[in-house]
Amino acid sequence: MFNKILIVGCGLIGSSILRAIIQKKISKKIYILEKSKKNISKIKKINSNLIFLSKIDKNISDIKFIILCTPMSEYKKIIIELNKFLSPNSLITDVGSTKNNLLKIKKKLNKKLNWIMSHPISGSEVSGPEYGNKNLFKKKWCIIINDKNTKEIKKVSKFWKKIGSKIVFMDADEHDKIFSITSHLPHLIAYNLIKTAQDFQKKNKKNIIKFSAGGLRDFSRTAASNEIMWRDIFFSNKKNMISVIEMFIKNLNGLKNNIRFLEDRKLRKILKNSKKVRKQIIDLKQDISKPDFGRIDI
Amino acid sequence: MFNKILIVGCGLIGSSILRAIIQKKISKKIYILEKSKKNISKIKKINSNLIFLSKIDKNISDIKFIILCTPMSEYKKIIIELNKFLSPNSLITDVGSTKNNLLKIKKKLNKKLNWIMSHPISGSEVSGPEYGNKNLFKKKWCIIINDKNTKEIKKVSKFWKKIGSKIVFMDADEHDKIFSITSHLPHLIAYNLIKTAQDFQKKNKKNIIKFSAGGLRDFSRTAASNEIMWRDIFFSNKKNMISVIEMFIKNLNGLKNNIRFLEDRKLRKILKNSKKVRKQIIDLKQDISKPDFGRIDI
Repeated sequence: MFNKILIVGCGLIGSSILRAIIQKKISKKIYILEKSKKNISKIKKINSNLIFLSKIDKNISDIKFIILCTPMSEYKKIIIELNKFLSPNSLITDVGSTKNNLLKIKKKLNKKLNWIMSHPISGSEVSGPEYGNKNLFKKKWCIIINDKNTKEIKKVSKFWKKIGSKIVFMDADEHDKIFSITSHLPHLIAYNLIKTAQDFQKKNKKNIIKFSAGGLRDFSRTAASNEIMWRDIFFSNKKNMISVIEMFIKNLNGLKNNIRFLEDRKLRKILKNSKKVRKQIIDLKQDISKPDFGRIDI
Repeated sequence: MFNKILIVGCGLIGSSILRAIIQKKISKKIYILEKSKKNISKIKKINSNLIFLSKIDKNISDIKFIILCTPMSEYKKIIIELNKFLSPNSLITDVGSTKNNLLKIKKKLNKKLNWIMSHPISGSEVSGPEYGNKNLFKKKWCIIINDKNTKEIKKVSKFWKKIGSKIVFMDADEHDKIFSITSHLPHLIAYNLIKTAQDFQKKNKKNIIKFSAGGLRDFSRTAASNEIMWRDIFFSNKKNMISVIEMFIKNLNGLKNNIRFLEDRKLRKILKNSKKVRKQIIDLKQDISKPDFGRIDI
């Protein structure tokens, strides 16, 4: 499919893409630009034929496909460098979790760049190339941001399909709005719950973690996600975040009052309605219906 | 261990206790009091030697061990009936998720009753006897509420140990406080997140559920739990619930401001601290460290 591919940033997502590219034989040569020496030595174990670059310079000018997998806060600097050296028929994509911020960077470039944005809906609470997995994108959605259906968009779609993704097209506004509620708010809420439990523990001097199996545990997994990645997402999607946080607090105050005034019917209606969402998620094959009994020994 | 045991209410928890009692041969005869005809026919499939009662009357007077597994809102009515017919050397326990409310019922009884309260920290988002599992309590904590260490408390502890639980003693106040943060608040938050997503979907007319794999999905499981059980818990633990909800909202407003004013250091510190809790949970063997990559096809 390509003679040369460059992966910039090779952590969990970058190394999963790398593994999938190797398995599907998508490129003859694979170039890696990765800052962390520790990560480089881990990546070398994946394959011995990788070519490691130490910086972006004229040597990259004939690479036709570049995938950005660093934290989003590094994109601007990298994009400006790539724009200096890339030839006009090179194609860039990225895996950033918000898109309006990236569109702004793109629009400000003095020279036009073939940058088609994508967002694979896959990840984990762990980070680092040692956790990468060639099947990470298999049967998962990958969002591609399209202004119009160009041959570049077709090429990027083909790449993601090749490594197993299902493609959906959206504009940046719609993307950032949808993922503020389906992904960004759930992560912020998990972080906030863990923070509240820590405050509670400090205030009451009780060892509560021991009894986390009754619910808290499941949030701790989400709240163990990479803090640089999530800071970048929360900051980049600021406007939508503030809006969904305010919706959430309004609803939570409603539940608080239902409890305070023992409003049976109102409360039960809300609790019961939640089950419908679970059913939709399972019907849409976004989860399996196998019950969770606490994971251990059942 | 017993000649006769009575299980009152035989859903997920009751039928799991039933299965464990059968496996461990804890009682010669097992009596079941269950209102739902549908459930009764499911329970009959577990074992053909069970004795089904239709009501509480003098026939129960010589049963020495009774386990309450109905929703907590039915406890009061059942306890008053049991108190009419039970002999003074019969022993009652229950599996309710809050305890101060139950202590109040106990204190108001005109005749003293041997009622030792327990709370096994196990469950699932599914309900009904068909999902019961004999290993549900294995290696899980069971809290026993103790005023003083009586022979009755020893007997109840022995029962839970026999079916695999690890025992912890607490008073009712401490119990209700600890579980308000480790279990009750996480469930309320999950319900509230799903409610907020439903409101978002209605307001924006977008199909967001399709993209729930990025975080929302994991909350939907918790929010699919039985609404009667959780209404009872939220109402019974009202005072503690209001207090932890207010702590949660205060922290969430803090995070909202961190995002609004792009307070990098403050935000990152909070996100990073969450990982410590995850580590503690794994060290305390309350979860396994195996990463979650989205459950499907990895």
